[in-house]
Amino acid sequence: MTTLYGYFRSSAAYRVRIALNLKGLDYAQAPVNLVKGEQRGEENLARNPQGLVPILETDEGAQLTQSLAICEYLDERYPAPALLPADAVGRARVRSLAQLVACEIHPLNNLKVLKYLVGELKVDEEAKLAWYRHWIAEGFAALEARLAGESATGEFCHGDSPTLADLCLVPQLFNAERFECDLSAYPTIRRIAERCRSLEAFAKAAPGEQPDAG
Amino acid sequence: MTTLYGYFRSSAAYRVRIALNLKGLDYAQAPVNLVKGEQRGEENLARNPQGLVPILETDEGAQLTQSLAICEYLDERYPAPALLPADAVGRARVRSLAQLVACEIHPLNNLKVLKYLVGELKVDEEAKLAWYRHWIAEGFAALEARLAGESATGEFCHGDSPTLADLCLVPQLFNAERFECDLSAYPTIRRIAERCRSLEAFAKAAPGEQPDAG
Repeated sequence: MTTLYGYFRSSAAYRVRIALNLKGLDYAQAPVNLVKGEQRGEENLARNPQGLVPILETDEGAQLTQSLAICEYLDERYPAPALLPADAVGRARVRSLAQLVACEIHPLNNLKVLKYLVGELKVDEEAKLAWYRHWIAEGFAALEARLAGESATGEFCHGDSPTLADLCLVPQLFNAERFECDLSAYPTIRRIAERCRSLEAFAKAAPGEQPDAG
Repeated sequence: MTTLYGYFRSSAAYRVRIALNLKGLDYAQAPVNLVKGEQRGEENLARNPQGLVPILETDEGAQLTQSLAICEYLDERYPAPALLPADAVGRARVRSLAQLVACEIHPLNNLKVLKYLVGELKVDEEAKLAWYRHWIAEGFAALEARLAGESATGEFCHGDSPTLADLCLVPQLFNAERFECDLSAYPTIRRIAERCRSLEAFAKAAPGEQPDAG
């Protein structure tokens, strides 16, 4: 049995849930409560010394970490439907869009980073929110420019079927909405996210639909 | 002609230089001075709306962004020597090690983030350095635990030839050394980096060897 160790509001776990759903795979969920700090508990550290989720335990017992690495694994092991296009330049484009979110926006707005800002740097609530929104705004402006300006964009981030890029875009937009960011400047991002959310694979992966949703 | 738009001290550009060298590819370098803010100049924004480097212009004129996406492109287009192992679980392991650095450590210590800390949050030099070292220490502790504890580790991060994981490890160690982080707790990381640096592909990619090195 494939098991996903995750948390309903973790956007990295959210990406993996979408991938699993798109591939039509049956999987169990094992919630790790990030707010209670369970990710740094003994059990989870044995699975991942980094003390993070998601972790995917495959049906063969391998424990995989890092959401994009997990999604690429799923795409290699279960090739249809593909999460990456066939051509090398197209694959590079999709990966770069995914990494724009996963390497430039998300890491800065992680729970552990927000905790450091408040705990170590004594940043107040207003400055913490400004930090959060700053990195969303900077990243989304670049993402919007690319999606609106590049001819490879279709109904989805790349062409007319969902890819690794959409798997990153939708959870990041969820976070932006949750922190009440102004999204009026990103019509292409919103249009693509709406298209994604019309698919059951995305809808079923939403945080509010998970067994551990508060 | 393949052209790399980069900066000698950008660790993301450093990763791509190692990949290009390992593949034995001939390429031109077009320096973009990050300290002078050239990445946000009109010319560079036309290449990449995100205003970042590295950007790889391929011999066919495609402009690719995001260092890991570029390295995967190079690995697909020029398969030998491979930067990823052949098996799906091994590939997932290598990618997760690379992403541990690229998604968890590096984004927090970027120039633009350090600038925000100082400019917006009025953090002093000591607290900035503590921030820098905190994320290195947290990430390297996890990386060391994995590399020391997992049987797939060899002379390099994965087995006995360099992979995508080593391409990320060496530039991150360079940054850690530059910011005088205490590295005594990471013998496996240091051992692997030393092995990498004994290869010409890594040595020639070092910041001090680049045409724009100050």
